[in-house]
Amino acid sequence: MTQPRIPGRRFLHSPGPTPIPEAVLHAMSQQPMDLGDPRVDANLAACEAGLERLLNAPQADVFIYATNGHGAWEAVVENVADVGATVLVAGTGHFSESWALQTEALGRKVLRTPWVEGQPIDNDAIEQMLREDTAHRIQAVFAVHTDTASGVTSDMAAVRRALDAAGHPALLVADVVASAGAVAFDMPALGVDVALGASQKGLMCAPGLGWVAVNERAFALAMANSAPRYYWSWPLRRSELSYRKYCGTPPQNLLFGLEAALGLLFDEGLGAVFTRHALLAGAVHAAVEGWATAGALGFFAQRPSARSVSVTTVTVPPGTDVDALREVARERFQVAMAGGLGPLFGRAFRIGHLGDCNPAMILGALGGIEAALRVQGLPVGDGVGRAVAYLAQPPVASVVARTAA
Amino acid sequence: MTQPRIPGRRFLHSPGPTPIPEAVLHAMSQQPMDLGDPRVDANLAACEAGLERLLNAPQADVFIYATNGHGAWEAVVENVADVGATVLVAGTGHFSESWALQTEALGRKVLRTPWVEGQPIDNDAIEQMLREDTAHRIQAVFAVHTDTASGVTSDMAAVRRALDAAGHPALLVADVVASAGAVAFDMPALGVDVALGASQKGLMCAPGLGWVAVNERAFALAMANSAPRYYWSWPLRRSELSYRKYCGTPPQNLLFGLEAALGLLFDEGLGAVFTRHALLAGAVHAAVEGWATAGALGFFAQRPSARSVSVTTVTVPPGTDVDALREVARERFQVAMAGGLGPLFGRAFRIGHLGDCNPAMILGALGGIEAALRVQGLPVGDGVGRAVAYLAQPPVASVVARTAA
Amino acid sequence: MTQPRIPGRRFLHSPGPTPIPEAVLHAMSQQPMDLGDPRVDANLAACEAGLERLLNAPQADVFIYATNGHGAWEAVVENVADVGATVLVAGTGHFSESWALQTEALGRKVLRTPWVEGQPIDNDAIEQMLREDTAHRIQAVFAVHTDTASGVTSDMAAVRRALDAAGHPALLVADVVASAGAVAFDMPALGVDVALGASQKGLMCAPGLGWVAVNERAFALAMANSAPRYYWSWPLRRSELSYRKYCGTPPQNLLFGLEAALGLLFDEGLGAVFTRHALLAGAVHAAVEGWATAGALGFFAQRPSARSVSVTTVTVPPGTDVDALREVARERFQVAMAGGLGPLFGRAFRIGHLGDCNPAMILGALGGIEAALRVQGLPVGDGVGRAVAYLAQPPVASVVARTAA
Amino acid sequence: MTQPRIPGRRFLHSPGPTPIPEAVLHAMSQQPMDLGDPRVDANLAACEAGLERLLNAPQADVFIYATNGHGAWEAVVENVADVGATVLVAGTGHFSESWALQTEALGRKVLRTPWVEGQPIDNDAIEQMLREDTAHRIQAVFAVHTDTASGVTSDMAAVRRALDAAGHPALLVADVVASAGAVAFDMPALGVDVALGASQKGLMCAPGLGWVAVNERAFALAMANSAPRYYWSWPLRRSELSYRKYCGTPPQNLLFGLEAALGLLFDEGLGAVFTRHALLAGAVHAAVEGWATAGALGFFAQRPSARSVSVTTVTVPPGTDVDALREVARERFQVAMAGGLGPLFGRAFRIGHLGDCNPAMILGALGGIEAALRVQGLPVGDGVGRAVAYLAQPPVASVVARTAA
Repeated sequence: MTQPRIPGRRFLHSPGPTPIPEAVLHAMSQQPMDLGDPRVDANLAACEAGLERLLNAPQADVFIYATNGHGAWEAVVENVADVGATVLVAGTGHFSESWALQTEALGRKVLRTPWVEGQPIDNDAIEQMLREDTAHRIQAVFAVHTDTASGVTSDMAAVRRALDAAGHPALLVADVVASAGAVAFDMPALGVDVALGASQKGLMCAPGLGWVAVNERAFALAMANSAPRYYWSWPLRRSELSYRKYCGTPPQNLLFGLEAALGLLFDEGLGAVFTRHALLAGAVHAAVEGWATAGALGFFAQRPSARSVSVTTVTVPPGTDVDALREVARERFQVAMAGGLGPLFGRAFRIGHLGDCNPAMILGALGGIEAALRVQGLPVGDGVGRAVAYLAQPPVASVVARTAA
Repeated sequence: MTQPRIPGRRFLHSPGPTPIPEAVLHAMSQQPMDLGDPRVDANLAACEAGLERLLNAPQADVFIYATNGHGAWEAVVENVADVGATVLVAGTGHFSESWALQTEALGRKVLRTPWVEGQPIDNDAIEQMLREDTAHRIQAVFAVHTDTASGVTSDMAAVRRALDAAGHPALLVADVVASAGAVAFDMPALGVDVALGASQKGLMCAPGLGWVAVNERAFALAMANSAPRYYWSWPLRRSELSYRKYCGTPPQNLLFGLEAALGLLFDEGLGAVFTRHALLAGAVHAAVEGWATAGALGFFAQRPSARSVSVTTVTVPPGTDVDALREVARERFQVAMAGGLGPLFGRAFRIGHLGDCNPAMILGALGGIEAALRVQGLPVGDGVGRAVAYLAQPPVASVVARTAA
Repeated sequence: MTQPRIPGRRFLHSPGPTPIPEAVLHAMSQQPMDLGDPRVDANLAACEAGLERLLNAPQADVFIYATNGHGAWEAVVENVADVGATVLVAGTGHFSESWALQTEALGRKVLRTPWVEGQPIDNDAIEQMLREDTAHRIQAVFAVHTDTASGVTSDMAAVRRALDAAGHPALLVADVVASAGAVAFDMPALGVDVALGASQKGLMCAPGLGWVAVNERAFALAMANSAPRYYWSWPLRRSELSYRKYCGTPPQNLLFGLEAALGLLFDEGLGAVFTRHALLAGAVHAAVEGWATAGALGFFAQRPSARSVSVTTVTVPPGTDVDALREVARERFQVAMAGGLGPLFGRAFRIGHLGDCNPAMILGALGGIEAALRVQGLPVGDGVGRAVAYLAQPPVASVVARTAA
Repeated sequence: MTQPRIPGRRFLHSPGPTPIPEAVLHAMSQQPMDLGDPRVDANLAACEAGLERLLNAPQADVFIYATNGHGAWEAVVENVADVGATVLVAGTGHFSESWALQTEALGRKVLRTPWVEGQPIDNDAIEQMLREDTAHRIQAVFAVHTDTASGVTSDMAAVRRALDAAGHPALLVADVVASAGAVAFDMPALGVDVALGASQKGLMCAPGLGWVAVNERAFALAMANSAPRYYWSWPLRRSELSYRKYCGTPPQNLLFGLEAALGLLFDEGLGAVFTRHALLAGAVHAAVEGWATAGALGFFAQRPSARSVSVTTVTVPPGTDVDALREVARERFQVAMAGGLGPLFGRAFRIGHLGDCNPAMILGALGGIEAALRVQGLPVGDGVGRAVAYLAQPPVASVVARTAA
């Protein structure tokens, strides 16, 4: 690596990849095995069972790919819609638009609901567009649960209600890349037909895995779909043979890590994991509120209840050099954060607070960011002090309530 | 893992995945970074430059995917042939046929040259089929350099000569999954337009990466190709932005490992690496010759010069329970080997001898396999003793000659 | 481990052990070697050369033991003083007294200079006691550079001047356990005859190594010393043979780590390392000053210039349950700190800020401690906010001055 | 490291250090903890309980030191004998003599029983010398269970019988450095008062730990012993406080490793571990017998029943350059073995076959050594082939018998 080493541990607060726990790194460091070794099958089964448990979806088919989140999107597109078919993408900002463009590039037609900056999914628009589709040409509704660019989490139950209200048979596909492992997500209770995710965010793994969980209705649609495909094909991957399941050699070391990471989540307890995420998000929000008192910074996500527990998008004044700010934060204060994406490029920075994170890590990150903001001359009120005070409070009712939801 | 631990180190002699060196595991264990960190770009550049150096192809575009070898096949198919177009697959056995089937599933037409068991590619058939394609409908010739199932390495220069003799403009695509890092492969000198590989064999990395190296002619064809695609698209991936290069988050930890692994190869010296592979293959061949004196076992690859330096396929008598043999070798003698694939299922076992391997490892593997053969009642002559004698010789001319080739 | 896992990375801010860098852990994870392997000798030589470089003492004999700091004390006692001989221990608090007691238990006589709480070594007392020792029975003066219990660093040059002023030939032995790698320590320039240290503080290694650097005069005294000894004997360890050097098997993995850790220090640059320590200490001091405004907490080290760059001892009001405070800090806020030792038990807590540390780590630690102080009902002014402001300043002259000293 | 990297895994077959299992390396790679963390105490307790279980000595006091085997010797000497007191060292070769010299250097008197090359302890001589000591001046009998230099294991029960027959109250101290974890050793049943060991052999850990297990009688003697001592003192270390137990900071990472290693032994089952060692020793012995048929090589241990399961000492013809042989084995064939020690220097080489070892590893080591012997021109019969045949046999009665003993 040509860049100088940063002394001490770097604070990784991009919203993905996230810090990988020691136990996961050690699991990844085990030697791979010959594909005939029954330990390989045991590992694959544990990964599938763990993801099913995370989604409370023991009946789902789980397919894990050597790929990333964009690959998981592609897997969904290739299986739920034939070439030339139509899907409806719910507008959430940068990531919904990226998914829509990828879907179009793969030869499918895309309808979009409008997106208002700082707002979650427009469920009324979904309902209306589905009602208008009397021929039921729309095969599926694609909805990003937490848009990593905007830091907004939409209400997936409300999306489901929109489909139901319209009486439309389209599949509901939820992208939980940025929310899985950070908030409760009960796939059957939410009426989600396909959930898709990746390894490098709330799942605390190295990037390199994408996955889908598919219910029976969605799998049946995939079976009926004659679109040419192979690597992504769910029907081909529904097999007992590891070589078929993964269309070739499975990415064993990443899967060793995934098994270990899921084990850490279950050992901590999913409830405790989600409470922790809500608590840490609260600390970040407290700091942003403190910074905002100086008039320069603010929340991009307008509705407090829609602010993600995974990532917070903070707006900056026009003319701010966000890249320079990030560089100071990273190189002088060892805090790696993210910039604004797509329409938010140059208008915001983003703090990831998901995955294997704890109060001291969040306080260190907020402190380092606050120092960088000061160095760059951005006026800030007391942020990290507010976060300390927030964390020192007795556990707040709102945290518990959000977590139980 | 539900299986009992094997005491000591397991000997991984499947032909992939192969043992991962400590230095590569440590590199993989580094924390990932935010995508704006210039260290990310430095790592990606090092991986690309390393693969170019391995192939002596500094002008090539290298695209690395979070995927496996089958994914690299898919990347080639999607980019070099439009839907409905035709490619010619050179018969080498199980892997050529798998590639052909995947190509057909992706909506392309496939012509095949015949495969004779135990033999390399039939170059005359290639020439003839290309000559017959006077309309130049064949977009590309797909040739597996070393078929991991048969243990046969074909002569890629001769394949090239067949194309030239036919005067056909088809691209020559070489699958070097099982040969890269084990034998010299000079992509421009061989007239190969696209080479594709994976991480988990001669490159000594964890599985989870597939890659292609693409020359200008092949890239131009991809540009002109209107087949719908996104994740695999070379034109989309030709970008300075890591996020574009990898169609989303790059599989950082695997790429940290790849950079380290390539560094190990270059530090040892490519010539030394190839000589080592030839030497270790010679030891395995000596052992198989020894075993074969008892009349039961033999080489699947008939022509000695076509026996791969990466993997040796050993035939067994009818009625042999190869899975039971592998289980004894693995669980009692700690040597993991592979079985016969496709047409060779139940008729052969395979010994991988590529990647991060040395004489003592090979002798241990051969010893463990010989013990397992004895336990299973298969008549064997002295194998490991011959391998010892072979290795104790002064460096043999044939090794040097093969390596220089 | 029976205790529940703490999510995320734990912040280790005891003044030793300190966090071990990834590169050091990886070095430690290499397989050991047979003692005839020249790589073993190369590793030992690199460790010795590195410690000599750190102390600017290329002429010194360095002996590294499988032991800890107390063992290094014992090595000094056994070699520089015969049974029944006398040494003078300069009072610095808990650690000087512990060293004195150990020396007495080993059958040597000990004189002590008085210690005043919160103050550094009383150099006048040293000079006076040496002057009174007209028979030159005192073999050596033992001086702790930084007393880890008090957080006070004494002026070693002034100690040397006291010996010189008294015209006494006693050796000057400096315990740099808590200062080596954190502040400049030029052994020849300071007139120190023996320096001793351990691995787990500023050297960023796992605990398990103690070392001494011995100049010619001290080695000659050891040669003349007839006290029975073996494991600790410098004359026996002065050998080219690794087996002699270490009185048996060297602790290879720890030494792999030490070589790597020294490499990290030299790569960063010793000047940069010391500046970093001064900067981080400044941030901690700023926070303590902030906390102290509420009237409850304070510095134990009275003289600002004597406050250590390695560890800060913070006094608490009578009746404070320091163990409970530490438990809240560790279990709820993931910050591990230390309590008061010896006379300070129950009267103080200690924050380590040495070794592989950076601004964000310090801010996280201070934030977590501040939160724990609040939870425990201790009145605190704004601490972490002051630390942020301190770190966001342009590099301060005082830091540079202290570092250059 | 200045030496070139050896490709692939090195085979470590010195009789210590031995290969460290991955799980132990990972345990060692955990970050250390503040000494107030109850997880520290849990780790220490697990290590002590594990060693007690290994020795079937739940009543013993176990003291673990940051040191090596020589340090454990020193701990015994300092505690069981006052300065000027007498101990009897049973002759076993190089290591008994080294222990005797160290004891003398520490100011104690040593009596020695004679040693005959290739033979175990002379129990009759012990009995006779104890009978002659009518004044009971001999405080303890020091007996090396397996002398790592000679490869001979003595019968500890017979040593005990010699003490009993003489009716002498001396303590029986057994050095199990090279046998612990390789053969059953029931401390109470054998009437051993003190057992001492180290971490880097059968315990599969990094070097850097020495330990003693002390029964009540031996501890009482240590209490009554007024010899000046501190670091090594058992009375001082009998404490609930980790800081007292270890006379300062415990070597945490090594102890994390020890806990993990003991866990591996218990998970495999001690009976299975001992059977495995007997089996692998049998394979080595079969190979040496095969080599010996050519007339040049032979066993140093004359009595087959006294050949150690841990290490085999192989004699070579006069004039053999053992160092050159070892270098060829290590650098060309990746097998690290040991040379002859003390009186055996230049007359033998030694093969370690203890710790985390399995059949394939042994066969690889034997194959590599056989190749090196051939390269060096030493006449050898078929060795590795015999080892293969031995291992392919059904489990032999003699193995089971030895193990049960």
